[in-house]
Formats: sequence, structure tokens, C-alpha cells
Amino acid sequence: MDNKLITPRKLAGFMELEPQKQIVFDNMLAKIRKVYEKNSFLPLDTPILELSEVLLAKSGGEIDKEVYHFTKGSTDICMRYDLTVPLARFVSMNFDKLNFPYRRFQMGKVFRGEKPQRGRFREIYQCDIDIIGNENLPICADSECIKVGYEIFEELNFEPIIELSNRNILFGYIEDIGFVEKRNDILTALDKIDKIGVENLKEMLLEIGVDKENTTKLVELTSLCGPFDTILEKIQNLSTNEIYVKGVNELKELNSYLKAMQIPEDSYVLKLGVIRGQNYYTGTVIEIRLKGYENLGVVCGGGRYDNLASYFTNKHLPGVGISIGLTRIFDILDYQNLLDLNFSPIDLMIIPLGDTKANCMELLFYFRKNNITCEVAYEDKSFKSKLKDANKRNIPYILIVGEDEVKNNAYAFKNMASSQQETLTKEEILNKLK
Amino acid sequence: MDNKLITPRKLAGFMELEPQKQIVFDNMLAKIRKVYEKNSFLPLDTPILELSEVLLAKSGGEIDKEVYHFTKGSTDICMRYDLTVPLARFVSMNFDKLNFPYRRFQMGKVFRGEKPQRGRFREIYQCDIDIIGNENLPICADSECIKVGYEIFEELNFEPIIELSNRNILFGYIEDIGFVEKRNDILTALDKIDKIGVENLKEMLLEIGVDKENTTKLVELTSLCGPFDTILEKIQNLSTNEIYVKGVNELKELNSYLKAMQIPEDSYVLKLGVIRGQNYYTGTVIEIRLKGYENLGVVCGGGRYDNLASYFTNKHLPGVGISIGLTRIFDILDYQNLLDLNFSPIDLMIIPLGDTKANCMELLFYFRKNNITCEVAYEDKSFKSKLKDANKRNIPYILIVGEDEVKNNAYAFKNMASSQQETLTKEEILNKLK
Repeated sequence: MDNKLITPRKLAGFMELEPQKQIVFDNMLAKIRKVYEKNSFLPLDTPILELSEVLLAKSGGEIDKEVYHFTKGSTDICMRYDLTVPLARFVSMNFDKLNFPYRRFQMGKVFRGEKPQRGRFREIYQCDIDIIGNENLPICADSECIKVGYEIFEELNFEPIIELSNRNILFGYIEDIGFVEKRNDILTALDKIDKIGVENLKEMLLEIGVDKENTTKLVELTSLCGPFDTILEKIQNLSTNEIYVKGVNELKELNSYLKAMQIPEDSYVLKLGVIRGQNYYTGTVIEIRLKGYENLGVVCGGGRYDNLASYFTNKHLPGVGISIGLTRIFDILDYQNLLDLNFSPIDLMIIPLGDTKANCMELLFYFRKNNITCEVAYEDKSFKSKLKDANKRNIPYILIVGEDEVKNNAYAFKNMASSQQETLTKEEILNKLK
Repeated sequence: MDNKLITPRKLAGFMELEPQKQIVFDNMLAKIRKVYEKNSFLPLDTPILELSEVLLAKSGGEIDKEVYHFTKGSTDICMRYDLTVPLARFVSMNFDKLNFPYRRFQMGKVFRGEKPQRGRFREIYQCDIDIIGNENLPICADSECIKVGYEIFEELNFEPIIELSNRNILFGYIEDIGFVEKRNDILTALDKIDKIGVENLKEMLLEIGVDKENTTKLVELTSLCGPFDTILEKIQNLSTNEIYVKGVNELKELNSYLKAMQIPEDSYVLKLGVIRGQNYYTGTVIEIRLKGYENLGVVCGGGRYDNLASYFTNKHLPGVGISIGLTRIFDILDYQNLLDLNFSPIDLMIIPLGDTKANCMELLFYFRKNNITCEVAYEDKSFKSKLKDANKRNIPYILIVGEDEVKNNAYAFKNMASSQQETLTKEEILNKLK
């Protein structure tokens, strides 16, 4: 060839899986989808590309350097970096056509030009649900999202531990102790409790200007974590601040629904250190971790927000949702060799001997019609190397089809694990495979 | 609000569906996927973004103005415009890890900055399968792709008509009559036969320089369309040109496999006017149309190519594949009101009366656990407007849950179509819904 070859490369930070892993990944996606559908969320599929004016509305037009941003002709375009702004746009545009509460799920790729590293990608599968109310949205909706998050990780064969709080508790408490003007700084500090530890946190709070006594109290409050009833009991009389009391009451109500929906009581805790991003959530906050897989960190996060789309519409659209970043979870499981990749994607390999390709294609049709996944090894190479392939691929059964076998409907059917070989009709083979 | 609102808009040429339509679209995608999996194709999910150098390798680096192309930092990036170049890159990069023939399916969005119009979008769902051989790939593979295309449209409740040809027939015939140096011009003209009609085609061929006699012969040949055996009989002795004979033999072999896999003989024809894009296919060419939906045109196309990735590797990788552009098909069906949108995504709406929200959440859990899709109408609005919602949404059953109902496990269960109302236990209701 006198072609000048181009080296085939992919962009850094973009996950691309070999077939076996992709099957596992797709199974996870399918299970998540099934749970979303079963809980009667409606699918949404917004474009990958949005007008920059729209996508950056939330940030006042400022382009985060992580956003993929370009122009085509005279159009200023961004690739979506989450599924929430597109949801806000969609709901605002289609308000009159939607039923409220509007329950949508969306599963798709989002794009962030972050520095790639283990578990951090530039193209990420995000799997979101949100319930959007028109003017009001009862706490029932929060409990539904929590239940769905629980079911998903159960379905994926994990033991989820759901950590819950309500941001009104800290909002109210901080107001109560007189530091309302430093609220955001204090919350940013408290959010770090798990990462930096209690002593460093205290120092941070003192630096912010909180007095010693209240520093201790704040850290004590934020350290509380345990069974819902126990922690609720402990915190319910700590403050009479109106926002604080609202938080306590919302947690009580939430708890009653979680019990009603029979989430096991050892699967969820009230943990006041759950704070999440600072400017977004306004009530319930949700984080899910997996028992025995603590190094995965938070595998699902979410919560309640006051208003989905205030930059697009004057309608008041309170909502609650959760989000799962599947790409990161999968990558870490893969890196730690925790994926079960030891399976064969097909049950049967049909190997022609002599002039029997058409007969093999007939058998292929017969078995596939009966839901056996199979292939014909029709490529031009030796019988021996086809056997070797079947072995390498862990294919459990092979069928050898020579001209005599076709005449007699009696095929050599071999169990690759036991090396046992039998002569059987295709009907008998089908029965064995079933 | 003193917010300055941004008008929520989406980019032109990007399909975005309301919930009911999205459910139908997703069902179509799921059915296609199921057929691909059943036929033991392996999933591949390449990134949306590729290095421009790689994506434009095939075109010698020339950027088609339709390609979304930009830089981020110092990286020159394109959005994928098909799934074939990414496949070529993937196979070249992962050659040693893959089993050949490598059978992959990929379903995902591709991007083309075309002028938007009915049925033509800038973001398109493409659903592809390809079988890639290492050095060789028997015609069996072509027959498998054809069978899969047939099954998909059957699964989607259409009657597919598969139109097949083999490009070697025209390649050889044109060589035979001495116009080999005008082959591409002649093929381009012949490809238009359905669009421009026989008379205009003849004029084009004469203009190209083909003599009158051969013009007539070429048009006659290209007009042939009918049952495989009949047409094969007609054409098999028209030329002794080596390439022509190769084409005839490949078609004969293909036919034997199509029969073996029991594709009904009235579902596929040999049609020499099937030519497809000029520079790509080298053997079998495939087009599928749908009986009774002729205005959809070709809903699936594909064929055999000599070498997948000659711009990335010196390995010889012959392949065959088909591609379905679902976005266009769906849009035309939608535009012609051919989609069945008259269904309720949920079976049951549970309506609380009085202080029974927690009880409703318990019932919600009970029914969902038993695979009934349902919702609780927990939003703060009147009972009457909740009933109205249920009606508007075509929800078949509602359950009214007051405090007495809970005490007695006896709920008002209403069939919305018949307006018939019964008092039943939750177990009885479950039985009715099943």
C-alpha cells in the first residue's frame, strides 16, 4: 500500500470499552432505565448541543472553561454539561403540553473538558430523574426519588446506604446563632467535614469568625449521623428558628413516606453532614454510598430545589431529583477488577466442515429463532483455529456440521468445558441448550 | 421577579420529542437493539467527539462544511458524522483484542450541519451493524445482515421489501462493453434511474459518450427487478467478463443463504438499479423499503466493502453492514400521523383524600412492586382537577384513598372509560389490574 497511514487515536478522557465490558456497562444502563420506567418516569432526550445563550443562562452567560463551546456559521453553540439546564429549557418551552408534576428521566452523555484522571472523564453518562411541580410539590416526591435510588443500586446487586439531610436545618441553625451573613462560607466549610476532619473544620470556622462555643455546636450538629428517629429526636428541640423547624418537619414527613414505601430502616440514615453543592439545593439533600464499596464515594446525589427554571420563566417550578454518573462508577469498578467479565456472549458456535455453509445458516436461523445466541464460524480458516477461537472466547458449546451430519440430522455437539461430545439431532441440541 | 429572562429555545434541526412520542421512539430503538443482540452482535459505544485528524482521515483531511468542527485548547476536534469512521478507528486500535469476524452494533447520535427540513436533521440516531473480517469474509456475512434488516422491520410491524444487487454486475458489464474509464460517470447516472426515469437516463448516458446500443442495454439491465431466481436466470449469460461472473456467483451464493434462513421469497428482490453511494460499496448492495409506506423511501441501506480502514492500517479488513437512520423514519411517520400515541403510560392513578398521603405512598409501593405502573396524585390541588388530569391523560383506572378506605382496606376503584366504580381491597384491585 502506498497510502500514508493516519495513526488511529481517540481523544484523552473519553471512555471506550471493549465488547465484554460494554455488555456489562449496557446491562447496568438497562437496569437503571428499567427502574426509572417501572416508577413511571417519562423519557426525555434533549439534543447534545444547545444554544450558548440558553445553556449559559444559569451562569449569567459566563463560559466555564470546562464547557465545550464553539460557533458554527453565526451560531454560538455549547455541548451540554449536565441534563438539568436542558430540562429547565424543555419544561419552560413545553409548559403547556406537560402534565405536572412532570416526572422525567434522561440518560445520556454530558461533556466536561476536565483534566482527565482515574474516574474523571470528559464524556460522562448521566442518569437523572426529576419531578417538577407546578407552583407546589409535596415531600412525597422527595421520598419517591430516594426510593428509586435505593431500588437502582439494589437492582445492580449492591447494598445502598442512603444518607439524607435537609438544608433548612443548617440554614435555620446558622440564622439562629446569628451568623446569617456568613452562611455560605460556613456551609462550604461544614461540607468538608468528611474530608478534612473535625479539628481542621473547627479551625476553618474560627477563621470565618464563628465564636468558639458556636463552632463546637456547629461541628457537633454536622457530625450527627444515625437512624432517622434517633437523630430527629436529638435535633428537634435544638432551635425554634422557623426555617430550622421547617427542616425538622420536612424530615419527619419524609421519614413517614420512606417507612410507608418500606425502605429497610438500616438502609438510610439522617446525616447532617450531607450538604452538597452550595447554591442549588434548598431542602432535602440525598447521597447514596454502597456498603463494602466505600471507595466509590457518593454514587448518587440529589435533592430538592426551589425553582427549576427561574432564568427562563416566571413560573414557579419546584423540583426534586437524583443523578447517577455511571461512567465514573463503572470505571472504578473496572479498575478494581470488580466487574464479572467471565461470560460468553454466545451459547453456541456452529462450525461448518466441507460444503455445508448453507446448512449452517439454516441451523443458525433455527437456533436463533428459538432464542439461542449463536454464530456460524464461516470465515476461511482451519477447523483447528476455529476450535481455538471458541476456547479463547469461553463459548460453552460447539456444533460440528459436516455433509454426513446434515444428511442424517445428527450433529457432533460438544461441551467445551467437559470436552464431552455427543451425536444429536438439532431438536435434541435445542432442548439441551434450553 | 426582577430577573431578566432568557427565551428558552433549541437549535433548529434537532429533534426533541414530547413524552408520549419519546416513549414510542424509545420502543423502536429498544426493538432494534433486541434484534441486534439476538443475532449476537456486540455493542460498541464510541465517543461523540473524535480528533479531526482521525475523523477526516478518510476524506484526506478535507473538512466537509457539514461536519461540526472546533478546537478546544490546542486540540482539533470533530463531532462524529457517521458510525463507520469511528468503527474503523476502533478496529484498527484494538485489532489484537478483537475476535474476527468482529460483529458490532452501535446505536447513537451522529451530527451533520445540513440545512434542516422535513425528515432531515442535524442530530440523527443511527443504528448500525457491521461484520468485519480479518483478510476474508464469506458471503454468509452479507446474508446475516440482510436477515437482521428483515427481522427489524418485521419486529417494528412493517412488511419489509429487501432490494438487493451486487455492484460487480455493473462493474463487469461496463468493463465488458468498453467504457471502464467512464465507469463512475455511468454509475452515477444509472443510480438516478428511479428518480429521473428511463428517457432522461438514456439522454444522460448518451451525453457521457455511451453509444446508442449500449445505452439501451445498460438501461435494460439496470431496470431489471424481480424474484431472485428469475432475474439471475436472465442475467447469468449476458457477459463472460470475470468481474461480472463474480457478481453473478456471489448473488447465487447469497440467494442460497437467504433461502436457508427462510426469508420469505416475496420479501426480497434482485434489483439491478440498486447502486447506492459510488465510492464505498464493492459487492452486495442492500436497500430496504416498506410495503404500504413507499413514501418513506429507503429505510435501511448497506452493503459489502473491500476494506474498512485502509487509512488507519495495512491490515485487510473486508466488511459488510447495514444502517438505519431512525430519526428520519420516525419524523415522517409522526408527520403523517402514523404513530399510535393513544396510550396511557400509567395504569393507575392513586388520589389521596384527607390525611392519607403516607397510605397512598404505601399503596404506590405495593402496586409498583407488583409491576403496575402508577402514580400518587399528591400535588396540592382539588380532587376535581386531579380527576380532570386523569381523564386528559387517558389513565384507565383511579383509586380514591380516604381515611375510612384505609381503615377498612376497601378503596373506591374507578374504571375511567366505563365510569364504573367498585369498592375493593388492594389485593382485589391488583388482581383486576393484572
